[in-house]
Amino acid sequence: MKRVLSFIALFVLITSTGFAQNQATWIWYPGDFEIWLGNNMQNRRTERGTFLPPFWKLDSHYNLIDFHKDFDLAQPEEVDLFVEGKFNVKIDGKAFSGYPKRITVPAGKHKVSLKVFCQDRVPAIYVRGKNVVSDGTWLVTFEDKEWIDETGKASDQSGTTWLKAGSWNFNDPQQPPSIFKLNTKELSAVNVTPKAGSLLLDFGRETFGFINLKGLTGKGQVTIYYGESREEALATATCETTDHLEIDLTQKRDSIMELTKAFRYVNVQFDGSVSIDSVSMLYEYLPVADRGSFRCSDEQINKIYDVAAYTLHLNTREFFIDGIKRDRWIWSGDAYQSYLMNYYLLFDSPSVTRTLLALRGKDPVTSHINTIMDYTFYWFIGIYDYYQYTGDKVFIQQFYPRMQSLMNYCLSRRNKNGLLEGLAGDWIFIDWADGLSKKGEVSFEQLLFARSLETMALCATIVNDAPNAATYNQLAADVKTKLFTNYWSDTKQALVHSRVDGVPTQNVTRYANMFAIFFNYLDDAKKQAIKQHVLLNPEVPKITTPYMRFYELEALCALGEQSYVTKEIKDYWGGMLNLGATSFWEEYNPAKKGAEHYAMYGREFGKSLCHAWGASPIYLLGKYYLGVKPTAPAYATYSIEPQLGGLQWIDGKVPTPDGDVSVYCSTKEIKVTGAGGTGTLRFKSRTKPVSKQATIRLVSTGLYEMTVEKGKSYEVNYQL
Amino acid sequence: MKRVLSFIALFVLITSTGFAQNQATWIWYPGDFEIWLGNNMQNRRTERGTFLPPFWKLDSHYNLIDFHKDFDLAQPEEVDLFVEGKFNVKIDGKAFSGYPKRITVPAGKHKVSLKVFCQDRVPAIYVRGKNVVSDGTWLVTFEDKEWIDETGKASDQSGTTWLKAGSWNFNDPQQPPSIFKLNTKELSAVNVTPKAGSLLLDFGRETFGFINLKGLTGKGQVTIYYGESREEALATATCETTDHLEIDLTQKRDSIMELTKAFRYVNVQFDGSVSIDSVSMLYEYLPVADRGSFRCSDEQINKIYDVAAYTLHLNTREFFIDGIKRDRWIWSGDAYQSYLMNYYLLFDSPSVTRTLLALRGKDPVTSHINTIMDYTFYWFIGIYDYYQYTGDKVFIQQFYPRMQSLMNYCLSRRNKNGLLEGLAGDWIFIDWADGLSKKGEVSFEQLLFARSLETMALCATIVNDAPNAATYNQLAADVKTKLFTNYWSDTKQALVHSRVDGVPTQNVTRYANMFAIFFNYLDDAKKQAIKQHVLLNPEVPKITTPYMRFYELEALCALGEQSYVTKEIKDYWGGMLNLGATSFWEEYNPAKKGAEHYAMYGREFGKSLCHAWGASPIYLLGKYYLGVKPTAPAYATYSIEPQLGGLQWIDGKVPTPDGDVSVYCSTKEIKVTGAGGTGTLRFKSRTKPVSKQATIRLVSTGLYEMTVEKGKSYEVNYQL
Repeated sequence: MKRVLSFIALFVLITSTGFAQNQATWIWYPGDFEIWLGNNMQNRRTERGTFLPPFWKLDSHYNLIDFHKDFDLAQPEEVDLFVEGKFNVKIDGKAFSGYPKRITVPAGKHKVSLKVFCQDRVPAIYVRGKNVVSDGTWLVTFEDKEWIDETGKASDQSGTTWLKAGSWNFNDPQQPPSIFKLNTKELSAVNVTPKAGSLLLDFGRETFGFINLKGLTGKGQVTIYYGESREEALATATCETTDHLEIDLTQKRDSIMELTKAFRYVNVQFDGSVSIDSVSMLYEYLPVADRGSFRCSDEQINKIYDVAAYTLHLNTREFFIDGIKRDRWIWSGDAYQSYLMNYYLLFDSPSVTRTLLALRGKDPVTSHINTIMDYTFYWFIGIYDYYQYTGDKVFIQQFYPRMQSLMNYCLSRRNKNGLLEGLAGDWIFIDWADGLSKKGEVSFEQLLFARSLETMALCATIVNDAPNAATYNQLAADVKTKLFTNYWSDTKQALVHSRVDGVPTQNVTRYANMFAIFFNYLDDAKKQAIKQHVLLNPEVPKITTPYMRFYELEALCALGEQSYVTKEIKDYWGGMLNLGATSFWEEYNPAKKGAEHYAMYGREFGKSLCHAWGASPIYLLGKYYLGVKPTAPAYATYSIEPQLGGLQWIDGKVPTPDGDVSVYCSTKEIKVTGAGGTGTLRFKSRTKPVSKQATIRLVSTGLYEMTVEKGKSYEVNYQL
Repeated sequence: MKRVLSFIALFVLITSTGFAQNQATWIWYPGDFEIWLGNNMQNRRTERGTFLPPFWKLDSHYNLIDFHKDFDLAQPEEVDLFVEGKFNVKIDGKAFSGYPKRITVPAGKHKVSLKVFCQDRVPAIYVRGKNVVSDGTWLVTFEDKEWIDETGKASDQSGTTWLKAGSWNFNDPQQPPSIFKLNTKELSAVNVTPKAGSLLLDFGRETFGFINLKGLTGKGQVTIYYGESREEALATATCETTDHLEIDLTQKRDSIMELTKAFRYVNVQFDGSVSIDSVSMLYEYLPVADRGSFRCSDEQINKIYDVAAYTLHLNTREFFIDGIKRDRWIWSGDAYQSYLMNYYLLFDSPSVTRTLLALRGKDPVTSHINTIMDYTFYWFIGIYDYYQYTGDKVFIQQFYPRMQSLMNYCLSRRNKNGLLEGLAGDWIFIDWADGLSKKGEVSFEQLLFARSLETMALCATIVNDAPNAATYNQLAADVKTKLFTNYWSDTKQALVHSRVDGVPTQNVTRYANMFAIFFNYLDDAKKQAIKQHVLLNPEVPKITTPYMRFYELEALCALGEQSYVTKEIKDYWGGMLNLGATSFWEEYNPAKKGAEHYAMYGREFGKSLCHAWGASPIYLLGKYYLGVKPTAPAYATYSIEPQLGGLQWIDGKVPTPDGDVSVYCSTKEIKVTGAGGTGTLRFKSRTKPVSKQATIRLVSTGLYEMTVEKGKSYEVNYQL
């Protein structure tokens, strides 16, 4: 059977390549499917059976959309139409009667347009002829302003804004966007403990999906208690998620739960005459393959990488979500880290843009993203990075107005000093950390604000909006200047945490200091000062969330402290593994013991044991050990600076828009293979390095570099 | 049967009064049901079987709403919950599990809140306890910002805006807003002409509803051709609306058409073995009773009043619509006239606010209302009038932000002279009139702009926004000043039509001139000048639409020219009656002949024969003959200035928020009964007038007035 399937897959591949330019796909107003799907997903959260929706504004898709494209056909052609919604179809402005499933487009130049109304789903079309096919080249608007005056003169529509249609991978006319579901596959428990009236199942590791009670029959009640830990599954009164069924079946049937859950352990309890043959699960996942990889001489690091990759997969779903057990909402700060990890593991751009679009929603802006000021800024910075990694200008061109209106919201909320502090309804998050002050002008927020303004300047340039590019650049420069005049303390040799009523506090925290390093906002002297006085200073309050550990370790990597970071990764992530973690957690405090680890938010099992922000080693190992990063958008140029960080050897791949960069590095040998752009390999060597395939240039004492050409492989002998 | 029904009606009245304070009703986010219903209605338009949706942006309801109210209960009470959407319910922030249908609210002070998600319908709730009932006193928001930080501290929600819940008359928990339908009743044709394979039905007058083919059976096709005229129903190739059915029935059944149509004549054609027993219709209507009335000594005027009232009823549906045959969209300029007529016939405020809300939609503003600049201004002015007639401050308090954002849109589009001219995508409508220039700065638009700014100043004052009240007043004064400096021509003794490139044209049209009169923007000299040089000047292009005839005749009435207007009404509306009109038309040109009258927009039957703007005699006769109008909001004070306009006697009622004002006036006798506020009766008399019930004051030579107290009746003997 396997051979046959492969043959079909190959055939489909050839077919779709052969007709690549004419592949029809479902299209919609860009961003609208993402918003609609975000609403659906985020409103599936329950907490012990209570519906728990988000506390911020949810937007809707535009319900009335005009789609059109101009075609020039050598031959007339038959065109099939599939539409989500009530619609009309026109050729050159002349409408067909009714709701035709097939039309003929005559030879010659013709405009084909469809107008669709749909309130519950996203107006979407799938148009399939030989040449007349729906794809991202169609133009769409939510207000065509197509009026005709009393003389029969049509409006010029010059006030109408047309965007390129949005699409994803809905290439089957029978699978419209509204019936989108993630993939599933059946998995069995690795261990089952049956008792009278109960079954305790262990699926071997953290997982996610629908429980299936197979061969269910009889009369009585079934309650399912889910646990990320064994303790949680057994704690019937306090576990976070449950399912409850009233059964009255005379025949056996399989019963699949309606909602997905996160768990490793499942405690099924039943009474009356209920019997269950067996319990399995439908594992639910987004089918996206790993392109990045990492292996090294340390097996614990390899295990950490694998568990981090699995953690990221579990949290990469309809969108990049925060954690699979509890929230299952889209949080901008959490998602931002997933974008970065994604560039080193999956390189799945649709997951990034889906998430960005769902987070942004529509105008008017009435609060910060997720109500959190920092989360608004991560949204901007996420676009900055997205452009660096992918070079996707179209995304920026389409959504620049939404970037502007969100930035206008921020600008309108500056205080008299031109800085941002929490106003009514704003949440200043920064981190989950006891006693962290959110008062006044927090330095960390100004720093993210500056980078957001730089993002706006970059995007304004991309869309040829020169006046605003200049404005945003000036605003960014102003905020950066204030960052140092207001917060740099020569006494503390660091940026202080905040100013309250115009007076800087003497409180030093790690947040602004570590970001300032990898944002490259500091001269070398200040970088070293911060390293000594903040990052490596045990007097400064420690970070206990993997969320901020991500940035702390990134800052240390950016300062070349990989060896220190290696130890930290082994201690911190290794510490979770030692406690039996099969995915990485929302928070980890080595000082805690046993089931204490599972508590958070004042709830016994409140903590998420599978949180996206726990997967940061993927990013650190790819960017700062394999050392690959773009130096121009879309990896047109990029750098490779391998760092062993105390390991004997490292070996892996980093994906780019055009192929993967392979890197192997030991203390004596470096092997690289280039991707689509032009790379620069840079490394230190105590001896003169040698390569048969390239000319190696001496940059400064002991520092060398060489050019890595598109797709070529190189071997270098050197001595660390 | 009639007595029984009356008894039940009486019982319901007593019951609902007895428990008035605890009457539960379906509630939602204010304005959202109106937007949702507007989308539904406006997307039912078809043109010979082709779906024809609006060409402007349609908005959506908020899909996630938090509802709450604080209660203080002497006893615990059982509360039933009915919800449209997925929901949770909390008491004092503590959620119930699942989706309960009934909860118990304990005695004491408690906050009851529900949070509801719904994408296809409007999130709505119906809560029914003894005291805990859903009504317009509940508070709602689309973003509760109810977050809890790591210390368990809840957000203060001070950034959350709470509005009062919206409601209408959905008092039955089993009749949620989403299943709203207008009422129907079955009517028969007054004349049926059967032929082989066809039936031609005449329903006696213009009507609206669903055709019902009774006892339909056999196999074949049925096509229904609808006609507002006999000619149209017979013109199978060019009539505007049709229905087509493929029949294959072995048993007889009744078949009711899916969509309503407007018609007087219906031409049913069928083939094959199809047979039909009979054809009836389900007349569809909004159940709202006439409160205003008018009778006079002229039977033609009485007939005109009745047909105008019927025309307004036919166009008063889910919303005030333009015409029942073709558009069935909500047009702000058309609706504005319906608001005014409504105050003199139905006094149905929900119809006004439904229409205003559906027209306004949501932010952001991306075009003028209906894309038409003048129609944006009519929206503002409609609120000005609505407040004068009803005194409804809550509407203004709830929607002032939407007024501001629409005005900001207008202000942002001013040219360097501070005036408005058509920009890309703007439609400058004014009137359907051949050769009417829309170029440059049109005086008519500036005039409406000035009144809109005055509306904003009024509303800013109502919501205690003093700084903006001052700003809007200043802006209004500026535009009014410019109106006279830029457009008043001493040569023409009139406002000229427009300025192009800063130069006034020498073109005089009626539009700005007639509005300036009843907006009271002119001194007496200019009023008289305009009367002579514009209104009564046959050289100035004539108006051929009832739409602008409305304002032309209003201006003449405001100048005391009722006798002239009586003649005009008899000629113009009487002219339509003489042609057999059973409702008033979209346009009437006495110069046309026969079926020429039915053509418009280059289509043989393009004209609507039942257009709301044709019903203006209702307004003119109520406001300028019976002479009743508010002089303070909600008729707290009002004036009664009866004008016979050449008639022997007039007799009628004008509704107010608190009772009706009755007026009878002949050349010798005036009888009035006051409503809730304080009226002032003002009249001319050649002799000293006498009343037993009041003291009559002499105002100036031959002009008298007297006070009409709340609910009291007066008789005055005088001599015209």
